Amino acid sequence: MMNLDKQKELVTAGPGTPAGTYLRSFWQPVALSRAIGEGLHRLTIMNEDLVAYRDGDAVRLLGNRCPHRGAALHNGRRLDGARVQCAYHGWTFDAHGQCVAQPCEPPESTLAARVRIPSYPTLELHGLVFTYMGAGKPPPFPRPEHAERTDGVHNTNVVTWNCNYFQCLENNPDPMHTAFTHPSMKLWTKSVPRFEIEETDYGIHMRAIRGDYVRHTYFRLPNVLSITNEYWQPPTHVTTWIVPVDDTHALTFRWFFTPAPNWRVRLKAHLAWRLLQHRLDAIVDEDKTVQEGQGTIANRSLEHLGNSDRGVVILRRRFQEGMRAPRAAPAEAAVVET
Amino acid sequence: MMNLDKQKELVTAGPGTPAGTYLRSFWQPVALSRAIGEGLHRLTIMNEDLVAYRDGDAVRLLGNRCPHRGAALHNGRRLDGARVQCAYHGWTFDAHGQCVAQPCEPPESTLAARVRIPSYPTLELHGLVFTYMGAGKPPPFPRPEHAERTDGVHNTNVVTWNCNYFQCLENNPDPMHTAFTHPSMKLWTKSVPRFEIEETDYGIHMRAIRGDYVRHTYFRLPNVLSITNEYWQPPTHVTTWIVPVDDTHALTFRWFFTPAPNWRVRLKAHLAWRLLQHRLDAIVDEDKTVQEGQGTIANRSLEHLGNSDRGVVILRRRFQEGMRAPRAAPAEAAVVET
Amino acid sequence: MMNLDKQKELVTAGPGTPAGTYLRSFWQPVALSRAIGEGLHRLTIMNEDLVAYRDGDAVRLLGNRCPHRGAALHNGRRLDGARVQCAYHGWTFDAHGQCVAQPCEPPESTLAARVRIPSYPTLELHGLVFTYMGAGKPPPFPRPEHAERTDGVHNTNVVTWNCNYFQCLENNPDPMHTAFTHPSMKLWTKSVPRFEIEETDYGIHMRAIRGDYVRHTYFRLPNVLSITNEYWQPPTHVTTWIVPVDDTHALTFRWFFTPAPNWRVRLKAHLAWRLLQHRLDAIVDEDKTVQEGQGTIANRSLEHLGNSDRGVVILRRRFQEGMRAPRAAPAEAAVVET
Repeated sequence: MMNLDKQKELVTAGPGTPAGTYLRSFWQPVALSRAIGEGLHRLTIMNEDLVAYRDGDAVRLLGNRCPHRGAALHNGRRLDGARVQCAYHGWTFDAHGQCVAQPCEPPESTLAARVRIPSYPTLELHGLVFTYMGAGKPPPFPRPEHAERTDGVHNTNVVTWNCNYFQCLENNPDPMHTAFTHPSMKLWTKSVPRFEIEETDYGIHMRAIRGDYVRHTYFRLPNVLSITNEYWQPPTHVTTWIVPVDDTHALTFRWFFTPAPNWRVRLKAHLAWRLLQHRLDAIVDEDKTVQEGQGTIANRSLEHLGNSDRGVVILRRRFQEGMRAPRAAPAEAAVVET
Repeated sequence: MMNLDKQKELVTAGPGTPAGTYLRSFWQPVALSRAIGEGLHRLTIMNEDLVAYRDGDAVRLLGNRCPHRGAALHNGRRLDGARVQCAYHGWTFDAHGQCVAQPCEPPESTLAARVRIPSYPTLELHGLVFTYMGAGKPPPFPRPEHAERTDGVHNTNVVTWNCNYFQCLENNPDPMHTAFTHPSMKLWTKSVPRFEIEETDYGIHMRAIRGDYVRHTYFRLPNVLSITNEYWQPPTHVTTWIVPVDDTHALTFRWFFTPAPNWRVRLKAHLAWRLLQHRLDAIVDEDKTVQEGQGTIANRSLEHLGNSDRGVVILRRRFQEGMRAPRAAPAEAAVVET
Repeated sequence: MMNLDKQKELVTAGPGTPAGTYLRSFWQPVALSRAIGEGLHRLTIMNEDLVAYRDGDAVRLLGNRCPHRGAALHNGRRLDGARVQCAYHGWTFDAHGQCVAQPCEPPESTLAARVRIPSYPTLELHGLVFTYMGAGKPPPFPRPEHAERTDGVHNTNVVTWNCNYFQCLENNPDPMHTAFTHPSMKLWTKSVPRFEIEETDYGIHMRAIRGDYVRHTYFRLPNVLSITNEYWQPPTHVTTWIVPVDDTHALTFRWFFTPAPNWRVRLKAHLAWRLLQHRLDAIVDEDKTVQEGQGTIANRSLEHLGNSDRGVVILRRRFQEGMRAPRAAPAEAAVVET
C-alpha cells in the first residue's frame, strides 16, 4: 500500500514538481518525426504546452504561450527564417525562443531583446523526436543499443493513454501480467513464468522463465523499457518510453528494431509490420483495459502487493530516490546490456 | 429553507456517510434481473463500484476493485465455479469475495487466504435484484404486499435520473405536483386535490382527495413509495425504490402488479404493459423535466416551503432522524397497509 | 503583469461580485429581439438564470428559479395575462415577478403575496433587448448616437465566446491586433498603424493612423465599443456590447447602422448584410482563435505588456475604479462623440 501523499508526488509531472524535475533531467521523446512538418504543431508534454515545427534538418520546440498577452503560438504563423509569429500582436520568436520582433511596439523599444520563451533542444532517432526539458546543459543523449545498426528494419509508433502515466510505468517492470492481460498473445498465456528480478545501476533486470525459454526485460529509470519480442517472427527489439502528457493522459513511444541479415528476413519484417498491426493493436487494447481500468489516477492506498510486484516496489523506491537526487550522474548514460 | 450543511449530509450516500449508512441498513434494489447474465456486469450503487453476475439460481454481487493493484474486476473473466479472475495478474475470487487464487504468487504464499473483497447477499423478487450493503447480519427482507400473489401480472422497470437522488426522493411524498407536472395524465390535471397527510411508524400516508375519489400514497422510509395507479386500466399497484448511483445520478426501480381475476383482465394487463409504454415514458419525462431542472444537486437554501410540502418536510425530518439512529429496529419490517 | 487575485476580481461577474455589481449598474443587452417570442426562453446572463418572453409590446425578463422548490421556470407554462406557471406545483408569477397563485396552497394562505422573483425592466432598440439588472431605480437608457436615424439600415447579431468575457473586453481598446489577427481583412494587414490613445470621461478614444487614414475607436466603460467600419462599403457604424454569460462564456451583441442617403445605397447595404456574412464570420473566427486560445480564463500573471497595450492598461484601471465606485454618476449617460 502507498499513502495518498506519497502517491500524489509520483503522479504529477508539471514544471517544478519532484517527478517533473526528475523526468526532465533525461532526454524524452515528444513526437513521431513524421508528425512534425513545416507548420506549427501543438504538443502537451509533462503539463507544458509546446509548439513544434520542422526547420530544415532540425525540429524546433518552443513554449506555446506568447509572453505578451498569453495567446497560443500554434495559432500563429510560421515565417521565413524559422521564426514564429503570434496571431495576436505579431510578436515574433526565432528558433531559439528569442523575441526578435514586436511590430506594434515603437522602434526605440528595447522590450523584445529582453523577452524569451522556453526553447528546448531536439534530436531525432529512427523516427522519434527527443528533447531535453531540464535545467542546465543537456546531458549526452544515451544512444540505445542497436541505434546505429543498418542491418535491419526500424519502426516507431505512439499510443495515447487515458490515465495517469505512472500506472503505465508500473506496468513495465511487471513481466507476470502477460499471462492474464494478454489473451491475444496465446503463446504466453499458456503458463505463468517463474520470475527473477535483479536491481541494477540503471534500474531493473527481470527474467521470466518458462522451461528453457527465458525472456529478459530491462527497465531503465526513470521510464524506459527494453525487451526482445519473440512473440512474432522475426524477433524484434522493442524500446518503450512512457511520457506524461498531463495528470490524466500519457504517451508511450516505441521503437522497434528487427535485425535482418538478408533480404528475405528484411521483407518478412516489412510485411510483418504492415500486416500484423492488428496484433499490436490488440495487445495495446488489452493493456489499456487494465491500466485505464485502474482509474484515471489509480488509488494505490487500497492495494495489496505480493511477490509478483517486486518490480513495481523497486520502481517506486528508485523513482523516489531519483526525485530526491534528480541531478546526480544521469542514469541514461548507463549502457544497457541486452 | 434548509441550510447548505444540512443539505450536504442528505445528498451524498457513499460508504461511511450518514445517508449512505442509513440507506445501507435496508435491502435495496440494484438491477433488473434480466440485465444480469452469466457474464460480469458493472454497477455503481451509492458511490460503490460493483460487479454482478448470475451463478445458477443466485446473483452474485462483489466489489469491483481488485485489491491487488486496483484493476476493475468487470474487465476480467468469469471462471468455472462462479469465480471471477482479474485481467491484470489473475487474482481469483469466489462468489463470496474470498480470494482463492493468486497465480503469480509463489505456492507457499499465504496472502490469498488473507484477502477478501466486499460481497453482498442478493435475492430476486419479480424481476428485481435486491441486496443488503449494510453492516452486520442482513435484516429479514420485507416482502411487500402482493409479492406472493399469482393471480395477476408482475412487471418491473428502471429509470436513470441525471440528478441527485434526494430530489427524486422528495418528489414522492408529494401528491400535489401531479396536477401541474403531468399534462400527459389528463384525468389528474383537471383538479388540484385536497391533501391529507398522516405520519406513521413506517413513514407517511397521504390521501389526495378529489370529490369521492381518494388516492392513497404510502411512503416507506427511507426510500420506498407505494401507490395504486388507476390512471390506466386495469388498476395497478406500483412500488418504487429510489436508489443513489453517485451524487449526481439516481435510479428508480419500479415493480408493477396488476391483479387479474380472469384471463380477460390478464390479457388486458399484458397488452397495456406492451402498448402503453409510451404513456409511462411520458410521465417519467415530465418528472425528469422538473426534478433534473432543479439542478444537478438542488440548492434548498433558496426554497420557500408551503402547506403542499408537508410530506417533504416530514420526509426530511424522518430521514435525518433515521441517519442519527440508523441501526434502530429496521423500518422495513413494518407492514405497509394498502 | 497582473497578480491572480486582482485578476480573479475582474473575471467573475455573478450577483454580488465587484465586477458583477459594476456591470449591473448599466443597461446591458441580453438577447436578440427576434429570439424572444411568446414562449418561455431560458437565458444566462452574468451567472444568473433568467427566463424571457414576449408580452405584447414588452419583453418580460424574470429570474428562472421558482422560489418554491427550485424548479426551472422555463420548463413551465405561459398563461394568459403574461403569467408564468411553474411545472412543479403551479406557482404562478405575473410579468413583474409577483407570485399571484399557489394552487396547491389552501385558500386562506397569505404566502403568495409575500413571494416575488427577480424581475428586470427591458427595452428594445433596433433588434436588441436591453435590461437593467442593478440595484435601485434604473438609470436613463443611454440612447447611442444614430439610434434615432431612419435614413439607413439597422442590423444586429450575437456571438457566443467559449472563454471569459474579460479577454473579449480587452480585445476592444486594442486597435493594433487587427494587422496580425485578421488576415481576412486584407486592407488592414498591409501595415501596422500608428496608435494614439486618449483617456476620456466615458472611457478611451483611440486613433489608429495609417497615412492619411485615421480609424477612430471609442471604448465606453464598462463594456461598449463603437467603431466605424470602412472595411466594407457602404461604411457602417458598429456598436458592440460584451456581456458575461458565466465565468467561461461570453456574448457580444453588435448593432450595425449603415447610413443610406438614397435607395441605391440602401439596397447595397441590404445586399452587403445578406451576401457578406461570411466575411463577418471570418473576422469573428479570427478573433475567437486568439481570445479563446488565451485559455478559458487567461492567466494574466505571465504577460508582458508593452506600448501597444496602453488601452488594455487603461481599461483595467478604469474598470477597477468603476468597481470601487459602481454607483457614481453612470457613465452611460455620457454622450459619445463619433
